[in-house]
Amino acid sequence: MPHPPIFDDNFQSGLQDLFRWRRDVRRFKEAPLLDGQLDRLLETAMLAPSVGNSQPWRFVKVFDTKRRQAIRDNFEACNQDALKQYDGEKAETYASLKLSGLDRAPVHIAVFCDTKTKAGMGLGQKTMPETLKYSVVSAIQTLWLSARAEGVGLGWVSIIDPEFVKQALDVDNPSWDLVAYLCMGYPEEEHIDPELIRHGWQDRLPFNETVLER
Amino acid sequence: MPHPPIFDDNFQSGLQDLFRWRRDVRRFKEAPLLDGQLDRLLETAMLAPSVGNSQPWRFVKVFDTKRRQAIRDNFEACNQDALKQYDGEKAETYASLKLSGLDRAPVHIAVFCDTKTKAGMGLGQKTMPETLKYSVVSAIQTLWLSARAEGVGLGWVSIIDPEFVKQALDVDNPSWDLVAYLCMGYPEEEHIDPELIRHGWQDRLPFNETVLER
Repeated sequence: MPHPPIFDDNFQSGLQDLFRWRRDVRRFKEAPLLDGQLDRLLETAMLAPSVGNSQPWRFVKVFDTKRRQAIRDNFEACNQDALKQYDGEKAETYASLKLSGLDRAPVHIAVFCDTKTKAGMGLGQKTMPETLKYSVVSAIQTLWLSARAEGVGLGWVSIIDPEFVKQALDVDNPSWDLVAYLCMGYPEEEHIDPELIRHGWQDRLPFNETVLER
Repeated sequence: MPHPPIFDDNFQSGLQDLFRWRRDVRRFKEAPLLDGQLDRLLETAMLAPSVGNSQPWRFVKVFDTKRRQAIRDNFEACNQDALKQYDGEKAETYASLKLSGLDRAPVHIAVFCDTKTKAGMGLGQKTMPETLKYSVVSAIQTLWLSARAEGVGLGWVSIIDPEFVKQALDVDNPSWDLVAYLCMGYPEEEHIDPELIRHGWQDRLPFNETVLER
């Protein structure tokens, strides 16, 4: 058996930097990733925890330009619709935000959860079946961090119709539910502050508003 | 503005080790965490991405021994119930697995999602409202990795009744949904392989079973 690693102060400080500099990226260079880089990052993502070791993540790499265009059009329509929730100054700010990198990102990935996977044989899911989808989110967060460590940005697009995406990608397995649509590529800019803080949409909450004791 | 960090090969290799050696821990030492360590780790968790920067995570640190015992009893009952799903050899294996560290972990944390938070003003949630809970999962995964880097183990208990937990903790906000119940502490053992692989419950899936192209 290999020896457990020791994570020294230097590593811990780098890890803190990684968390601080991970961003939801919407402005990408068009340059492709390195050969083999995406599959390597996906393999790392699969080291994420999953309920009962069910590994319910299903990654669909989207290359076809017509499918990509259809999804981008769907985002534009959903985004126009979402804008109607806001009035006045808030609507102006919303309209000025760039909320996806679908226009230029070299990599598009749709991430599904196989809600009927036999892997794991249901362990841990009986009272909280939603943990299956949560496992897919853990894999996405792992992908995000490992990509950022290699200088690759990731943006999570949630302003889309999940059923539309499924159809646009000819994913006909009824047990597969869309969890996320991801853009990846090298970022045009690096920021330590989230875009939505920088543009005055929503600041960080104070620690005490989110931590209680019982 | 601070300069973006460069994550060198050494850091990237350490990060890979961190992903490989992060485990769902169920066997804890009773020793407490260091002074201030838990709050520091929770602050790091809050660097996670959240839809519209909504930060919907709500962490409830559970100290009260009666509440802890009630939750442990609930786990035992749910676990007995879950065992009934399996027959023969599978039931024997299930019964032999240690599926929570509620007995000894020095730290218990219930993690909720405030499904009606005003933070973020609904941005990104209209077509996929489930992204609010997914944001909480990203924070848990961040907590998990930062804890492991400091030698602290985390175990996610999903074999509990979420409504029971909410009542046992007197969390009476109707918009708060339980996402996870976590145990934390220093682990008794370190492993590179997940417990469910080591005990023959569920092996890793091949890469090609979880990645497609379109």
